[in-house]
Amino acid sequence: MDRYCFGVDLGGTTVKMGLFKPDGELVDKWEIPTVKDDGGSKILPDIANSILAKMDEKNIEKEAVIGVGIGVPGPVDPDGFCNKAANLGWVDKIDLEGDMHELTGLHVKGGNDANVAALGEAWKGGAEGYSDVVVVTLGTGVGGGIIVQGKVLAGSTGAGGEIGHIHIVDNEPEACGCGNHGCLEQYGSATGIVRLANRRLAEDNAPSVLRDGDISAKSVFDAVKAGDVVAIEIAERFGEYLGKGLANVACVTNPQIFVIGGGVSKAGDVLIPYIQKNYVKYVFHASRDAKFALAKLGNDAGIYGSAKLVLE
Amino acid sequence: MDRYCFGVDLGGTTVKMGLFKPDGELVDKWEIPTVKDDGGSKILPDIANSILAKMDEKNIEKEAVIGVGIGVPGPVDPDGFCNKAANLGWVDKIDLEGDMHELTGLHVKGGNDANVAALGEAWKGGAEGYSDVVVVTLGTGVGGGIIVQGKVLAGSTGAGGEIGHIHIVDNEPEACGCGNHGCLEQYGSATGIVRLANRRLAEDNAPSVLRDGDISAKSVFDAVKAGDVVAIEIAERFGEYLGKGLANVACVTNPQIFVIGGGVSKAGDVLIPYIQKNYVKYVFHASRDAKFALAKLGNDAGIYGSAKLVLE
Repeated sequence: MDRYCFGVDLGGTTVKMGLFKPDGELVDKWEIPTVKDDGGSKILPDIANSILAKMDEKNIEKEAVIGVGIGVPGPVDPDGFCNKAANLGWVDKIDLEGDMHELTGLHVKGGNDANVAALGEAWKGGAEGYSDVVVVTLGTGVGGGIIVQGKVLAGSTGAGGEIGHIHIVDNEPEACGCGNHGCLEQYGSATGIVRLANRRLAEDNAPSVLRDGDISAKSVFDAVKAGDVVAIEIAERFGEYLGKGLANVACVTNPQIFVIGGGVSKAGDVLIPYIQKNYVKYVFHASRDAKFALAKLGNDAGIYGSAKLVLE
Repeated sequence: MDRYCFGVDLGGTTVKMGLFKPDGELVDKWEIPTVKDDGGSKILPDIANSILAKMDEKNIEKEAVIGVGIGVPGPVDPDGFCNKAANLGWVDKIDLEGDMHELTGLHVKGGNDANVAALGEAWKGGAEGYSDVVVVTLGTGVGGGIIVQGKVLAGSTGAGGEIGHIHIVDNEPEACGCGNHGCLEQYGSATGIVRLANRRLAEDNAPSVLRDGDISAKSVFDAVKAGDVVAIEIAERFGEYLGKGLANVACVTNPQIFVIGGGVSKAGDVLIPYIQKNYVKYVFHASRDAKFALAKLGNDAGIYGSAKLVLE
């Protein structure tokens, strides 16, 4: 009997779903909308129905299903409860694993979406073959997912891997979204890069293509690729902050590899040297040889990682 | 049949040994000297003989022994090899677990001494009852041991929890022992506190009892307890660096509790508020409620933690 598992990436707009074989082969992939009416009470039944329909369609017996992994945009505690997920309309504590088990009759394992995506990258993405991984997501914010000996480090209140809030700069006048001042996220995220660019451009009148048009993480790294001297200085500062922050993470978990993902990582390989050379400068020698790679799974990281949750 | 386990804390001068029941009751405790002749080749046979003699003395059958845990001053990889332990005269890779198993016929599990001591504090010391713990050792250096879900986070090359080398100050002119500049260890260790004291005293001529006699971590905190204004300023700076560093650790592992140990912690409860109030200032909100406690086991942390290694 072929065996299967499901990976569910539950987002605020759509639910991405994948049917996998235990070796990581993606058999089928589909999406359903996230219906947030009635405090999000329809979401889990919709997902359950979609899974049961898929099993029907593929003639998969319940006994052949190892389980359903599900990543949600909120903290999931070790007992499988999701405390709150504002983006889903969930304001109360939800028995994520228990409710889904009741709806499907299947084994269910839940996790935070960022951690689950990291697990996906560690399993079949940029860190395939490694057991000790830090996945860094450079997007609107800076997120992280930490894998230790092949397992997610979720943290005691679900806030493991919140590396965007490592304090990296003293005396930063602007506040981070979290309320603190000087968090890594303020310099390493897409908006952080824009902040660094605007600050650099205001320092003098050095010519730069960045002075024409809108500034974004993409325009900065496009300019870097084109050899723009000011853009390269901005990338150096970005790399200094990020390298320093990741060096501090390495003092804690001593990973084999860092995987860089998120929207900013679409800039590609050009990013890595700026981060890595500063990482090497600040890191404790025992972690100096950690590798750096780009994320590979894109939007599929969540379905891979949630499927992996039930294979652990 | 009563069951037992052994905890061995292998140091450069003495080997501390404990006979435990599985619930953590310390049945017997003794020491033997660490004989480092011949490249440390006598150390493991000496320990094995001492364990076998103790079993004989107490009429403990081999079947009643769950195992022998052993903490060593060097990195231990997941296969139980110790790569190098200069303090023991071990310059080559040693099959720590395999050799000890061969010598005793018992199940053996090895670990790094700092991590093992942390496990001891998490099991029966300052963090008893908690599963997610960071033990901070403030001594000659700043060491750390990280416990996640009750297990040691050893790291991919054995350098997990090297929190003394978190980068905390830019533009530090003096070098840390590791070669970097601005590591937490340069401000949070016993010698770090002396550094902070000397720098503060050089700033002006404000009266302080610290201007008479030798400055040490002990004299600084004795002066703090006596209400010395300059000493209190030094403690504030120490707390700022340490609080900031531990806030960064919390962004990675999100622990329930920090346990402060090592020689500096002999100052007692006076330490905690200086560290904790700065921790709260810098930490990501989800980790704000982490507790702070002093280590309780002192020199016995290693035997407790190594015993716990074989109970996991």
